Amino acid sequence: MDFKGFAGKAKESSFKMASIPCSVRDYALLEIMKSLDESSGRIFRANSEDLDRAKAGNLPGPVVNRLKFDSNKLKEVSAGISDLTKMPDPLFNIVFERELDKGLTLCKTTCPIGVVCVIFESRPDALIQISALCVKSGNSCILKGGSEAANTNRALFDVIYNAGTRAGLPEGFASLAENRADVDGLLKCHESIDLVIPRGSNSFVQHIMENSKIPVMGHADGICHIYADKSADVEKAVAVIEDAKIQYVAVCNAVETLLVHKDAAAPLLPALKARFDLKGVVLRGCPRTKEIIDCESATDEDYRTEYLDYVLSVKIVDSLAAAVSHINKYGSHHTDCIMTEDREAAEEFMAAVDSAGVYQNCSTRFADGYRYGFGAEVGVSTGKLHARGPVGLDGLVSYKYKLYGDGHIVADYSEGRKSFNFTQAL
Amino acid sequence: MDFKGFAGKAKESSFKMASIPCSVRDYALLEIMKSLDESSGRIFRANSEDLDRAKAGNLPGPVVNRLKFDSNKLKEVSAGISDLTKMPDPLFNIVFERELDKGLTLCKTTCPIGVVCVIFESRPDALIQISALCVKSGNSCILKGGSEAANTNRALFDVIYNAGTRAGLPEGFASLAENRADVDGLLKCHESIDLVIPRGSNSFVQHIMENSKIPVMGHADGICHIYADKSADVEKAVAVIEDAKIQYVAVCNAVETLLVHKDAAAPLLPALKARFDLKGVVLRGCPRTKEIIDCESATDEDYRTEYLDYVLSVKIVDSLAAAVSHINKYGSHHTDCIMTEDREAAEEFMAAVDSAGVYQNCSTRFADGYRYGFGAEVGVSTGKLHARGPVGLDGLVSYKYKLYGDGHIVADYSEGRKSFNFTQAL
Repeated sequence: MDFKGFAGKAKESSFKMASIPCSVRDYALLEIMKSLDESSGRIFRANSEDLDRAKAGNLPGPVVNRLKFDSNKLKEVSAGISDLTKMPDPLFNIVFERELDKGLTLCKTTCPIGVVCVIFESRPDALIQISALCVKSGNSCILKGGSEAANTNRALFDVIYNAGTRAGLPEGFASLAENRADVDGLLKCHESIDLVIPRGSNSFVQHIMENSKIPVMGHADGICHIYADKSADVEKAVAVIEDAKIQYVAVCNAVETLLVHKDAAAPLLPALKARFDLKGVVLRGCPRTKEIIDCESATDEDYRTEYLDYVLSVKIVDSLAAAVSHINKYGSHHTDCIMTEDREAAEEFMAAVDSAGVYQNCSTRFADGYRYGFGAEVGVSTGKLHARGPVGLDGLVSYKYKLYGDGHIVADYSEGRKSFNFTQAL
Repeated sequence: MDFKGFAGKAKESSFKMASIPCSVRDYALLEIMKSLDESSGRIFRANSEDLDRAKAGNLPGPVVNRLKFDSNKLKEVSAGISDLTKMPDPLFNIVFERELDKGLTLCKTTCPIGVVCVIFESRPDALIQISALCVKSGNSCILKGGSEAANTNRALFDVIYNAGTRAGLPEGFASLAENRADVDGLLKCHESIDLVIPRGSNSFVQHIMENSKIPVMGHADGICHIYADKSADVEKAVAVIEDAKIQYVAVCNAVETLLVHKDAAAPLLPALKARFDLKGVVLRGCPRTKEIIDCESATDEDYRTEYLDYVLSVKIVDSLAAAVSHINKYGSHHTDCIMTEDREAAEEFMAAVDSAGVYQNCSTRFADGYRYGFGAEVGVSTGKLHARGPVGLDGLVSYKYKLYGDGHIVADYSEGRKSFNFTQAL
C-alpha cells in the first residue's frame, strides 16, 4: 500500500473540509443517519458474517458481544448523530478579536486540526461515532478498525462515505485502512496526518505513542487512586471506593490503589474489608495495613499495576503530602480522588495532584465524556497539551490567527511612523 | 550527569509550584527584578568575560552583539518583568463550571503544564524572559542557554534562583543545564519534562523534534508566502512584499515565495522588479514569470527553501486554489498572506491555508507576540495542537477537571436511581 499517497489524499481533502459551512456538515450527518437506516439490512448481514467468523474462531465471549451491531446499536448511534447536528458549530468561532491599530484587525478563530487518524478495536459503532465527530468538526479522518469487524466496518464505511460525498463533503473526507500492517505505515505519514487517536489496550497505545512523530491523543494506563484523608467520612468512603472499584472493573477510570491517612486507617479499613469480602474483592496491603486487617501483601509492583480486576492495593500514608507524592509517582495522571470533609485539604490535593481529573468525595468512574455532559467523546487524554481528560468536539479543533490589513507594513511601526494601539473587541 | 535525577527534582518542584498563589509569584518576580538590579555589577562582569572570550574566539559580529548584556538590556527585561506582574493570573481560572447533578459540580480549571525545558541560543536576556514567564505561569523550568553566554547565564541564573527561593518559590523551581551534551540527556526524561521549547536554528529545532518523546512547541522552518490575487492593489502589494522581504531578512516571518495570479502578473511584476532592483533583492522566477520580467530561474528546491536572505522566489498560478495548494504543499504552516481587495477571496484563502497566521493585505512580519499585543512570547508554534502561532502566557497553561461530590457514585446513575441534570453555570 502507498501510505504517503493514501494519507496525502486525506490531507488534500482536509483543506476543502476546512471551508465547508456547518449547514452542509450537519446536512451530511443527517444524510448519513438516513442512509445507515436504509442500508441496515446490508450492514446487519455483514455483521453476521463477522459474528460467524468470530464464533468459528472461538473468539472470547466479550469480544463477540462488542462486535455485535444490531438495530439497538443502530438506534443508539443514530441518536448520537442527531445530537451532534444540534450542537453549535465548533468551527469559525472567534476566540478573540483585537484591533492592533487603525484598520489592522487580528481574529483568533477556531479551525479543524486537519487529518485525524483513529485506530480502534472491535466495536463497529466506534467507526460511526468517530467519523460523525470528524465531520462535525471539519476534520478528514482515517479510520482503522479491528480486523474481527472487517465486514461490518467496510459496510458502514461505504454507507457513510457515499452519503457524505452525495451531501457535499469533499472526496476523501474519510478513508478506511483495513490491515493491521497499515497502522505502522500510517504512523510514518507525519507530513499528512496531524493527530493519531488510538483506542485500545495499554500495550497497543504505548506502541503507537513510541513509534510515531505524529502527536498522539489518548491514554495508555489508568491507574486511578482514592486517598482517604484523616477527615474522611467512613461510610461515604466505603461506598465511593466500592463503586470506583467494582461498578465496572475492566475500565481505565476504575480505582486501583487506595491510600489511607494513618489516622483514618483504624475506622476505615475494617469497614472496607467487611464490604469487599462480601463482594469478592481481594485487598493487597502495605505492612501497616496488614497490622489492621488481614490481607495479601502489596509490593511496589502492585502500585504500578492497572489490575482491571477485583483487586485493590492499599497503602497507609502519614500525610496528605505523602499521598500526593505517591499518586504523582505511581499514577497515570488520569483521575484521582480525595475523600475528605475538609475543603482546604481537598483544594490542596486538587492543586498538587498532576492528573486530568482531581475529585473530592465522588467515584473516579465519573471520568467520562458522557457523564461530564460533553455528548460524544473521542477518548480520554492523559497528556497535558491540547485536550486533557475526556475529549469532546472541542478537542478536535485548533485555531488560527487571521490578520486583516489594508497595506500595513512593519517598517512603519519599527521606524516610529505609526504605533500599535491594542483594542480588544471581544 | 544524572539527568533523571536532575529532571526529577524539577518535577518534584513543579507539584509545589502548582499551588503557589499569584501574589507570591508576582512578589517573587518583583524580588527577582530588584535583585537583578542590585547584582548588575556582577552580571556585567560575567558578561564581559563572555564577550572577551567571544572576541578572542573570533565569533561573528552578530553573535557577539546578541551576547551583549548591558544596562539597556537590563532595563528592557526589567520592564518586561514589571509588565508580567501586572498581567492577570493565568492559573486557577475556571474555564467552565457545570452542575452534573445536585451536589456534584464539575469545574474545568487552568493549571500549569509542569516542567518546561527551554533551550535557547546566545541572547542571555532570553534566560530572564523565559524564567519570568514560567514563574508567572507556575511552571518549573529547566534552562539551557548557549555556551558562548555561559558566564552571563550562570550569573543571571544564580540571582534569579536565590531571589525566587527567598521570596517563597519552592527549591528547584528553576534549574540550569550548562553543557551541550546535556540536551540529549534531558530529551530522554519524558517522565519528568512535560514540554520542550527549542529556540534556534532550523536544524537544531528539527534535531530536537526528531529525538524526543516529549512534546515540542516551536517551529523549524519559516517559509512564508504572499499570494497576489487577481484583484490585488499593485501599490499596496509592492509595499507589503518589500516589507515582508527586507524589513528584517534573517527571521522566520519574512516572505520567501511570492505567488501571483496570472491576471495580476503583468501589472505587478515589473513594478516589483523595479523596486527590488533598487533594494538589491534577487528574484528567482518560474518560466511564466521570466516571460514578463528578466530574472533568475526558480527550481522546485527554491520553493522549499527558507532563504533568510535578499532573495525571493516568484511563481505565477492560475487560480486562488492553485496558490492554496502550493502553500499547503511547500509552506511551513507559519504565516501566509493574500493581497486582494476581494473579501470573499480573502476568506476562502484564509480558511483553506493551513497555517498559524493567515493574512489579508499586510506584511507577514506582523507574526510576533509583541505585535499581537500578547506581551512577552515564549516562541512561535507551527504545530496545531495546544498553542499555535506566537505563544504567550496562555500557551504555558493546561487545565484539569475538578469534580466536587458528597459521596456520589456511578452505580446510582447507571442503575437508574438518579439521573444527570447538566446545568452550566459559566
